[in-house]
Amino acid sequence: MSKEITARSEDYSKWYNDLVLKGGLADYSAVKGCMVIKPYGFALWEAMRDVLDRKFKETGHQNAYFPLFIPKSFLSKEAAHVEGFAKECAVVTHYRLKNDPNGGGVIVDPDAKLAEELIVRPTSETIIWNTYKDWIQSYRDLPLLINQWANVVRWEMRTRLFLRTTEFLWQEGHTAHATAQEAIEETEQMLNIYADFAENYMAVPVVRGLKSPSERFAGAVETYCVEAMMQDGKALQAGTSHFLGQNFAKAFDVQFSNKENKLEYVWATSWGVSTRLIGALIMVHSDDEGLVMPPKIAPIQVVIVPIYKGPDQKAGLDEKVNVIVKELRSAGISVKYDDSDNNRPGWKFAEYEMKGVPVRIAIGARDLENNVAEVTRRDTREKMSLSLDGLPARIAGLLDEIQLNLFNKAKAYRDSHITSVDTFEEFEKVLDEKGGFVSAHWDGTAETEEQIKERTKATIRCIPLNNPQEAGTCILTGKPSKERVLFARAY
Amino acid sequence: MSKEITARSEDYSKWYNDLVLKGGLADYSAVKGCMVIKPYGFALWEAMRDVLDRKFKETGHQNAYFPLFIPKSFLSKEAAHVEGFAKECAVVTHYRLKNDPNGGGVIVDPDAKLAEELIVRPTSETIIWNTYKDWIQSYRDLPLLINQWANVVRWEMRTRLFLRTTEFLWQEGHTAHATAQEAIEETEQMLNIYADFAENYMAVPVVRGLKSPSERFAGAVETYCVEAMMQDGKALQAGTSHFLGQNFAKAFDVQFSNKENKLEYVWATSWGVSTRLIGALIMVHSDDEGLVMPPKIAPIQVVIVPIYKGPDQKAGLDEKVNVIVKELRSAGISVKYDDSDNNRPGWKFAEYEMKGVPVRIAIGARDLENNVAEVTRRDTREKMSLSLDGLPARIAGLLDEIQLNLFNKAKAYRDSHITSVDTFEEFEKVLDEKGGFVSAHWDGTAETEEQIKERTKATIRCIPLNNPQEAGTCILTGKPSKERVLFARAY
Repeated sequence: MSKEITARSEDYSKWYNDLVLKGGLADYSAVKGCMVIKPYGFALWEAMRDVLDRKFKETGHQNAYFPLFIPKSFLSKEAAHVEGFAKECAVVTHYRLKNDPNGGGVIVDPDAKLAEELIVRPTSETIIWNTYKDWIQSYRDLPLLINQWANVVRWEMRTRLFLRTTEFLWQEGHTAHATAQEAIEETEQMLNIYADFAENYMAVPVVRGLKSPSERFAGAVETYCVEAMMQDGKALQAGTSHFLGQNFAKAFDVQFSNKENKLEYVWATSWGVSTRLIGALIMVHSDDEGLVMPPKIAPIQVVIVPIYKGPDQKAGLDEKVNVIVKELRSAGISVKYDDSDNNRPGWKFAEYEMKGVPVRIAIGARDLENNVAEVTRRDTREKMSLSLDGLPARIAGLLDEIQLNLFNKAKAYRDSHITSVDTFEEFEKVLDEKGGFVSAHWDGTAETEEQIKERTKATIRCIPLNNPQEAGTCILTGKPSKERVLFARAY
Repeated sequence: MSKEITARSEDYSKWYNDLVLKGGLADYSAVKGCMVIKPYGFALWEAMRDVLDRKFKETGHQNAYFPLFIPKSFLSKEAAHVEGFAKECAVVTHYRLKNDPNGGGVIVDPDAKLAEELIVRPTSETIIWNTYKDWIQSYRDLPLLINQWANVVRWEMRTRLFLRTTEFLWQEGHTAHATAQEAIEETEQMLNIYADFAENYMAVPVVRGLKSPSERFAGAVETYCVEAMMQDGKALQAGTSHFLGQNFAKAFDVQFSNKENKLEYVWATSWGVSTRLIGALIMVHSDDEGLVMPPKIAPIQVVIVPIYKGPDQKAGLDEKVNVIVKELRSAGISVKYDDSDNNRPGWKFAEYEMKGVPVRIAIGARDLENNVAEVTRRDTREKMSLSLDGLPARIAGLLDEIQLNLFNKAKAYRDSHITSVDTFEEFEKVLDEKGGFVSAHWDGTAETEEQIKERTKATIRCIPLNNPQEAGTCILTGKPSKERVLFARAY
């Protein structure tokens, strides 16, 4: 059967959309720019969320919930923040509809105009720091380590499922500290949690680095990021962690009395990852047959498809498979036994390949006689005939192998797509012909960065942490530079 | 120390607010009608959500996520629905702000007016059934069993923390079925899950019943509900489950081809509980000393407070307590060892009483010598000296006892506050002097229901399931009635 997936080589962007839609991850909605996250996509988000949430709690953070709406005036309180966020946003101006006296259905009631417009949160620094003012008086109230799982809205004209949507789901951590040092350590700790999650759960290798000043979060003193590389040679920012200095504390007048009983402004961080990560996951691992899920966050790790003729064979298979299912589950492996008779085995094989289920077990009447099953890995599509004895342990090992293989494969691709160049000509050539990260000298000015972006569509993805210091000259201006930075075209 | 909680007898409403604010559950926000759910309150919501989510999944439901915004025209498609929900809602009319050319900060950009206004979802039937149209073609696509955890907005002028807020958190299940029978069974199944959750986890006894036609969900054929009784004699609706018939399928033209290949409209249900449940939890169990958390959903089940002088005594206690903590945790009990030296033991005792932690263990140097600890139950405030040998098993048993005691106490109160009356005079007297549910005959008309509400502020909470059939006469009109229904003043 044809799964009707566009090949990557033919149209990468269409391939991506095919996987999202046909893999059952998400769907377009009737509201421009907003998506519907379908059950399989949401189960993936839940698996990702559960791992991250555990890591946040293990490092002392607590979840809370702040209002969806932000008074318009709040956005103006931090000067850089309003420039970055206030522009493209959903504005609530009224709080009531009424029946149209002319019979045209329901209309906005002009008498129900808000005195001050409310903005649907694009991010929550302002409403949260306005609240922290009431919660923080003394050094004893610090640190305040809070995270929120929420929906946010940033109005987008051109949208792509998961990668760029008007509404998306995310988590946003907002912490308050007594010293700059402690806040910086928090910022770095959260960056490391994101990197660990990306690499060890999503099997997506990332570069940890700092953003250039022009790419910083609006209102941040320093933005740390993890950057991943997609199969089309474009980069994707997989998470950011911001050291906000005292900017928001000053904007919202949040001071604490220190141990010497003197008032000081509080130091802040914020950090977040979103459903965008699902886009990265798809583009790093999947192939022309469909999605490929890393076992550690796969909604279904193992699918079992029975192959039989008639109810007697089915009953024999059921009996054995139920034992296997039980053993797998008690080993902590999620398994689906798809014995529905709506579809034939071949259809199911294609379906679970499309959905990227890491391991497929097919078992028929003859296999049962021989005490074996046919086991297929999604990553390599390799088939093996495995004994039913000790199968669960073998599957557990196989899932680990797949997880590792996906990471290694992605890392090999990524590593082979970091190219050092020393001239602007080479820079353009690599971007156009090979893609990936381009490591190049830059004179450190926003003007040069902007010119390079205009001419090549490449941006500075990051200045890697622990970057080797190396004297050189800027590829565009020839001015002196003390280190290379990573450029790429990006999502 | 004084915890400064208003006594219930003095001002019940102020008592409630004191508990919410001082117990650290929620706070007012800068946005009128919206609350901040604080970490302790959110941990409680997470505990409730986790139990419900597991029950939903065990009964075959999957989570998904639908857009926050609903096009205005969607609300008008189901006639009753728009009457119920379209009126008090947040309306997004613009998608951009800009700098005020006159220097007045940021203003709404008049050029960024939406062609069709978007409503912030008050509930999601319309956007979901518009999506289901694309997902359902054949009987093979049914049943579709989907749940969503989300924030919703219903504009409120007079708000109360958790009980009535403009934005609140909830879950909304939306299922689609091939037959009316199957949809009704789903509606009843979900009602039973809510009742089980309320009684066996929240320790809140509930009456299961049907709403009268005027109290039905806007767009439902039948609304099932669970109703709880608060300590002030007022009722609170703790969850609803709606049989929607084919109303939404017809409004959004969702048909499926049945096994005979004929087109039929799909049958629907929806069901939900919200953060309002936290309000019920507080008002059923708490006392003048603070919150009282039922062990099964308490964010912290056991708190351990050390009592010591100097670091040597502290070290000895730490060693023993760390063993106890480990044993309790491996028995699945959540425990906090509060060894902070910011506050004295007496302050901590008051603090955890306020927060309603079910069991407090105080342990001092002399206790250690005697191999005992002082254990205090929050529900009865009874103190016991218990041997450290076998303490974890004893604590586990105690938590079960507390859970049961809370339920029994609430049930005794509730049962003693169901009063049968046969005249309108008695009806008013019971409402004013005793409160609770009043079981009375009603002639079955919306007019009588409305008049009773106007005169007494009491509404029909429900017609209990399996209600005994008993001939009588309506308390207001004297017309014949075949069964009693439960009235109450309600939150």
